[in-house]
Amino acid sequence: MRHFLMAFYISVSLAVVAMHAHAADRPQRPNFVVIFCDDLGYGDLACFGHPTIATPHLDRMAAEGMKFTQFYSAAPVCTPSRAALMTGRLPLRNGMCSNKRRVLFPDSKGGLPAEEITIAEALQANGYATACVGKWHLGHLPQYLPTNHGFDQYFGIPYSNDMDRINDAPKGRDAFWDPQVRYWNVPLMQNIEIVERPADQTTITRRYTEEATKFIRDNKDSPFFLYLPHSMPHVPLFRSSEFADKSRRGLYGDVIEEIDWSVGQVLATLRELEIDKNTLVFFTSDNGPWLIFDEQGGSAGLLRDGKGSTWEGGMREPTLAWWPSHIKPGSISRDIASTMDIFATVHALADIALPTDRVLDTHDLTPVLRGTGPSSREVLFYYRAYQLMAVRRGPWKMHLMTQDAYGPGSSEPTRHDPPLLFNLEHDPGEKLDIASQNGEVLRRLEADISTHKAILMPTASQLEL
Amino acid sequence: MRHFLMAFYISVSLAVVAMHAHAADRPQRPNFVVIFCDDLGYGDLACFGHPTIATPHLDRMAAEGMKFTQFYSAAPVCTPSRAALMTGRLPLRNGMCSNKRRVLFPDSKGGLPAEEITIAEALQANGYATACVGKWHLGHLPQYLPTNHGFDQYFGIPYSNDMDRINDAPKGRDAFWDPQVRYWNVPLMQNIEIVERPADQTTITRRYTEEATKFIRDNKDSPFFLYLPHSMPHVPLFRSSEFADKSRRGLYGDVIEEIDWSVGQVLATLRELEIDKNTLVFFTSDNGPWLIFDEQGGSAGLLRDGKGSTWEGGMREPTLAWWPSHIKPGSISRDIASTMDIFATVHALADIALPTDRVLDTHDLTPVLRGTGPSSREVLFYYRAYQLMAVRRGPWKMHLMTQDAYGPGSSEPTRHDPPLLFNLEHDPGEKLDIASQNGEVLRRLEADISTHKAILMPTASQLEL
Repeated sequence: MRHFLMAFYISVSLAVVAMHAHAADRPQRPNFVVIFCDDLGYGDLACFGHPTIATPHLDRMAAEGMKFTQFYSAAPVCTPSRAALMTGRLPLRNGMCSNKRRVLFPDSKGGLPAEEITIAEALQANGYATACVGKWHLGHLPQYLPTNHGFDQYFGIPYSNDMDRINDAPKGRDAFWDPQVRYWNVPLMQNIEIVERPADQTTITRRYTEEATKFIRDNKDSPFFLYLPHSMPHVPLFRSSEFADKSRRGLYGDVIEEIDWSVGQVLATLRELEIDKNTLVFFTSDNGPWLIFDEQGGSAGLLRDGKGSTWEGGMREPTLAWWPSHIKPGSISRDIASTMDIFATVHALADIALPTDRVLDTHDLTPVLRGTGPSSREVLFYYRAYQLMAVRRGPWKMHLMTQDAYGPGSSEPTRHDPPLLFNLEHDPGEKLDIASQNGEVLRRLEADISTHKAILMPTASQLEL
Repeated sequence: MRHFLMAFYISVSLAVVAMHAHAADRPQRPNFVVIFCDDLGYGDLACFGHPTIATPHLDRMAAEGMKFTQFYSAAPVCTPSRAALMTGRLPLRNGMCSNKRRVLFPDSKGGLPAEEITIAEALQANGYATACVGKWHLGHLPQYLPTNHGFDQYFGIPYSNDMDRINDAPKGRDAFWDPQVRYWNVPLMQNIEIVERPADQTTITRRYTEEATKFIRDNKDSPFFLYLPHSMPHVPLFRSSEFADKSRRGLYGDVIEEIDWSVGQVLATLRELEIDKNTLVFFTSDNGPWLIFDEQGGSAGLLRDGKGSTWEGGMREPTLAWWPSHIKPGSISRDIASTMDIFATVHALADIALPTDRVLDTHDLTPVLRGTGPSSREVLFYYRAYQLMAVRRGPWKMHLMTQDAYGPGSSEPTRHDPPLLFNLEHDPGEKLDIASQNGEVLRRLEADISTHKAILMPTASQLEL
């Protein structure tokens, strides 16, 4: 399979080269940057309505670009969400989820299967320089690391920043209230080597930023793909001394404001190198806020619940796209979109054919970005591991099951028969169940589920290895 | 008192004329426009994070002006809130509240006392043309109407648009689900005459807008004050045919989008007449969303509760200020501010001395608008009629009592002893009571209450007459 795909990419590449030779006016292939936060809430940016977190760089990114108000991650927790972003496929298609273990842990033996095609592999095979700077969490054994999944280089932590807790750290949530770097013996890696352990998390956002901007400078003349998945604002929260006590929102605000600074650095570098008009930048997150951490968790704004749940707060993300002279400044897209759609969008803009040997869950956002038309995505599925919890078509969201946000006290799932139905565009906070008045809508959504299940083909979990 | 004040204003006016003659470089006195919504929620504008209500004109107003994220009305219901805006004084100082009747009703005999000084009176006495276009609700008997409170002209409804319900209208909330104009026999007035009854509420936002822009055009050469208190989005919801089914958010969204259009018309008129740089425009609302009306009520975003309560959702408003070339475009103020502060701000900018014969609750926002310094307001009091419910200083809010939002099923107030304490800047949703860890803060806030009560002097209710 891998060989077939490489051959496929090479032939596409050759075709692309040929096209270049024959069509001098063909647009240059854009660079891509994906900035991905960890546990950022829908309501945590000033441009998404937070009253006390100051995000001037993200606000400017929104003012110069596009704000997406109905943009989703593919899962309400980390590992599955990241697998889906990278592959344009639901996590259960590549085994990157589990009903028993929510994410990969330091003792896990599995990871993203080699057969999967990542955005990075597609772009690398087509002449892009590629880098992953930040948290990976798709397998930390050598064969699963970013450099084996299409990235020329990697700098970051291989799994979550709250793992590898040492024995003499405070127990339970207590460790997070006054977090010390040494409590979490998380490795920092350069490619496949551990270069620091425990990773000094106080400077981690700054160092990711330095690494990211260096990569941009080093590759300003070649098309590049930078994947910048921040470790923050996942607890334990750390920020560099420059951001200590800077925010009115306390430690959580400090952390977001350092990420905001980082975004400003990335965009300023693109402007300075005069490659801003040829670089598409996305900003989003892997899942909603971890609400059980009180002040140290974020806010989903007007949305219900947070991380781990398939209520909107668990999966809808504050998302921005920026591409000067291509995206109309200050525009707002209210299309339903997904992190999985970045896969098809990147393929379309880099002139790479999508793989045809597998089921994909990705829709090209190019018309949305250019303002030429709507997204082709009409339906969105909300999974918690292998369990289909809800489905959305247009404004309608039907919940088959619900479960409270991810945490030690989180309850068992509740099955709804008849299902719950919400009009998300009238009632984004999911307060008003209107299933009983809308039988026809329920039947339409049930038909969507039938169609979906016919091509589902789940794969055995990598998270249980 | 009134005579004294008039003499006082005339002498100030003469002084102002004299200053004009002697100082040609003295800045021109600006025009003022106050656009005031009814029951608009903190989360109901796109620029405050609503995902499906499109408010491009308000978003542009924010991008060109200043967004206030901690701006409050002076009361969580209509009549007291408006009295405070007009006078810069808490409602209990002028009797415009009641523990028995929340607002003025069509059978009320009271109104804003003649002794009160309104913004309009102050400006009218100093050469401003003044108009009130919209909902008044400070007394509908002739002596209380806008033209007896400093406005040269008035066009609008004298009280709420859900009053004067006819006998054969559906009972309870049913009338609101498919509202018909004839159900509410509300009068539309021109100055002191009723010109239409029932007011055709479907066209009311459009007609207010036409009247407002006509007033601006007629007075483009004189300084003017336009007070534009929309009847909407208070239930029953109505909008003109151009906005029917326009919004993704349904009827409520249509109504907000028509108000957004109206704001666009006002600002466009100011630009067209080239008086935009000399006109300060505020946009805010009287209280939070009326949550008991489900889809027909708005959203307080990440804030707790709504209209009628002294939780943040009841009194914090989505507020914008716009004054090209004076306010830095795209700025955000996180100062604590109040609708009552418009009173001192207008006085300062129009060079009118504040009255010294009464207690005022107003702070000049000029330094905030110009970006030269913070507001002098350090403390904010949350009243429900005559009852002090909560106090805020800096980030700290202490609740002495709480009560759920205003509605038929609203509960009795709950007294908290010890009080509840929230850090609103860390926890704007008021989820985490941290009173037990912050005894010193509680004592500081209790001292603020003592100081406040020493000069309170409540007046007998006008709402019970």
